[in-house]
Amino acid sequence: MVGEIVAVGTELLLGQILNTNARYLSQALARLGIDVYHQSVVGDNRARAAAVLRQALGRADLVITSGGLGPTEDDLTREAVADALGVGLEENREARAVVESYFRRRGRAAPAGNRRQWTLPAGARALANPNGSAPGFILEKDGRLVVCLPGPPGELQPMMEAEVIPLLAAHPGRRGTVIVSRVLHLGGIGEAAAEERVADLLAGTNPTVAPYAHPGQVDLRLTAKAATEEAARALLAPLEAAVRARLGRHLFGADDETLEAVVGERLRSRGLTLALAESCTGGMVAERITRVAGSSDYFLLGAVTYANSAKERLLGVPAETLRRHGAVSRETALAMAEGARRCGGASVAVSITGIAGPAGGTPEKPVGTVYFGLAAPEGRWWRRGAFPGDRETIRRWSAQTALYFLYSYLLDPRAPEGEPAASAEPPAGASDPR
Amino acid sequence: MVGEIVAVGTELLLGQILNTNARYLSQALARLGIDVYHQSVVGDNRARAAAVLRQALGRADLVITSGGLGPTEDDLTREAVADALGVGLEENREARAVVESYFRRRGRAAPAGNRRQWTLPAGARALANPNGSAPGFILEKDGRLVVCLPGPPGELQPMMEAEVIPLLAAHPGRRGTVIVSRVLHLGGIGEAAAEERVADLLAGTNPTVAPYAHPGQVDLRLTAKAATEEAARALLAPLEAAVRARLGRHLFGADDETLEAVVGERLRSRGLTLALAESCTGGMVAERITRVAGSSDYFLLGAVTYANSAKERLLGVPAETLRRHGAVSRETALAMAEGARRCGGASVAVSITGIAGPAGGTPEKPVGTVYFGLAAPEGRWWRRGAFPGDRETIRRWSAQTALYFLYSYLLDPRAPEGEPAASAEPPAGASDPR
Repeated sequence: MVGEIVAVGTELLLGQILNTNARYLSQALARLGIDVYHQSVVGDNRARAAAVLRQALGRADLVITSGGLGPTEDDLTREAVADALGVGLEENREARAVVESYFRRRGRAAPAGNRRQWTLPAGARALANPNGSAPGFILEKDGRLVVCLPGPPGELQPMMEAEVIPLLAAHPGRRGTVIVSRVLHLGGIGEAAAEERVADLLAGTNPTVAPYAHPGQVDLRLTAKAATEEAARALLAPLEAAVRARLGRHLFGADDETLEAVVGERLRSRGLTLALAESCTGGMVAERITRVAGSSDYFLLGAVTYANSAKERLLGVPAETLRRHGAVSRETALAMAEGARRCGGASVAVSITGIAGPAGGTPEKPVGTVYFGLAAPEGRWWRRGAFPGDRETIRRWSAQTALYFLYSYLLDPRAPEGEPAASAEPPAGASDPR
Repeated sequence: MVGEIVAVGTELLLGQILNTNARYLSQALARLGIDVYHQSVVGDNRARAAAVLRQALGRADLVITSGGLGPTEDDLTREAVADALGVGLEENREARAVVESYFRRRGRAAPAGNRRQWTLPAGARALANPNGSAPGFILEKDGRLVVCLPGPPGELQPMMEAEVIPLLAAHPGRRGTVIVSRVLHLGGIGEAAAEERVADLLAGTNPTVAPYAHPGQVDLRLTAKAATEEAARALLAPLEAAVRARLGRHLFGADDETLEAVVGERLRSRGLTLALAESCTGGMVAERITRVAGSSDYFLLGAVTYANSAKERLLGVPAETLRRHGAVSRETALAMAEGARRCGGASVAVSITGIAGPAGGTPEKPVGTVYFGLAAPEGRWWRRGAFPGDRETIRRWSAQTALYFLYSYLLDPRAPEGEPAASAEPPAGASDPR
């Protein structure tokens, strides 16, 4: 079965809103094993929308539309579908009930203008809308299935889940392949190095492996096609095992697992607590750690010490260290981590201090230079990053690198991915961390 | 001039990524007065992509593609464009220079596989890519203009701004109406109340006003159509003046102006410094404040005191206050703000303490209950919010409300939008804020 997605709405053509419906519908069809070769967007224009629908019906078995089901003159999907299929429009009793029940719930009668919403192409079956006034509808003609859904995602998605997906899953025309993807997340390794380790796997055609790079993180997307979801998963399993074997500790999670959630789970299971000292990331790491529900179990303190005075006053970074080595240095990073650990009374602390730009760079420490410190009962470590991009990108690289530094410590508390403090000059006058 | 947007990429058809490029390109063309009647998405398939391009060239004067310009076998936009236009492929010297300079900057020679990237349709002019290896290109044939841009937004957008927009702006074929939008940002007012104040303006057809609600912020989008950008702006000006007159201090900025940037500008111009004490927002406010380049001029300290122990130790919130009133209370909020102000040595401090959920709610203080404190030379104030939604939404509401609280103080330091501290029970044992 081949499906096609048509979004109707001038606001999409003006770029006023993002076409999130196309993504949602594509994902849903992929999970059902329905191939999608085309998505289109057309404006609130009856003739153009009908032409796009006619073309879609010529190359797909299933056409799903989003938008254009409201009560105004601009809402023309019903008319365009009728034109494309060559059928008339007629009052639809089920659709009328959907609209009237919407207004009844609000203690009002349906306004006369809403009559448009229950005037549907002949032969349509209306779909209930618990979240809005617009009924959706389904129409089957000459072996082609047309599904029309309202534009607001809060109405479209529940209608899709409740009515359309079950119908498509049971449809006799649905045959062929299911597409299942799994995304593996890597840290502490660049895209080129990651690709090199799985180079021979990249040539496969089913399942496939494709890399995607983000600041400080590389994703490998594994995708398999098969007759059933189980068969697709069976294709993916050995591939994932092969990738895991080659990437080892760099592979920190899969699919929806974030580095902050993985780190949080490890902190919790080992009964450890965390403190952070951030400078250039400005709270980004703390914000990510606390996105995770239940993070108050292990996260005690984040100090966003943007000013030198705050680094001294709050974290006890010696003025001498700042003067001699600068705020962006391994010595300051180590002193910040020690200070955060002491001040927060935490088991482990991570610090970040760097130059996110656009100003503040020097020849020895250009924009993108970032130092990280880690203080723990087992010792102290530091690392240095030189990140590309603009201010926001450098901050994201830094936050991801700090979290991966912490992750590597949690994997092996005696050998995180950094240099032991002794490899640096000892921070002048720094207090003992323990 | 009519434009059409074609995105090439199987990942879009699988719903793996959102088509943000289509939105960006549509906005750019709308600003140029180029009408867009269709957007399409097609997969990494040479024949299908060529067919979609052929159709687009048949109904538009300008076709812009995104994606499919990488070095792999899946990157087929160059071939599809050549097929659609009926031209051959040839080595393009400028494109080769773009690729080679990319690798030179990384101290490497261009791998053999990247040769595909400089094999372009005959007659193409290459576009430089300062942010990646893929050259874009422009091709004019039979009065039709084809512009091909790389898929990553960080490469596509700079290329569009630097090369394509200036070229289109000067293109003799560009005529017709220009659409100009202006978005006004409101704080401290709900969507319904904002709509009520501008109710009569919502019925206009040119220019139009449309409200959009976000957590803690309402946007009003003003849109005008006219023959020229100047004429469209002339339509917008009186409408904006009318909206401003009705919404007064709630209107904090327009278009790309963020609340954190507006607040930062006011802090800087008045020579004030800022400290923050965050609990449930977990660093989100600090992260937003420090997104602004140059924020180190006024931002001194952010204390993410997630644990009670951190509230006591770092900010000096009395244990008695926490015990008697709880961590989520006006007393604790005021003590946190005072502590942050003292500890950071800042002119003004804002605090946030609340229950973001999903756990932690009680009948008196359900999930979504958030207290804010503000400490300044002029006095101390607090406010309380009861926010809807999930953990992330409550955190966003809270961060936006905290920034608007600070904004209202900067507008009028004697009457920010909160209750004076005296209206609360004085925090038991709290130290003097000044």
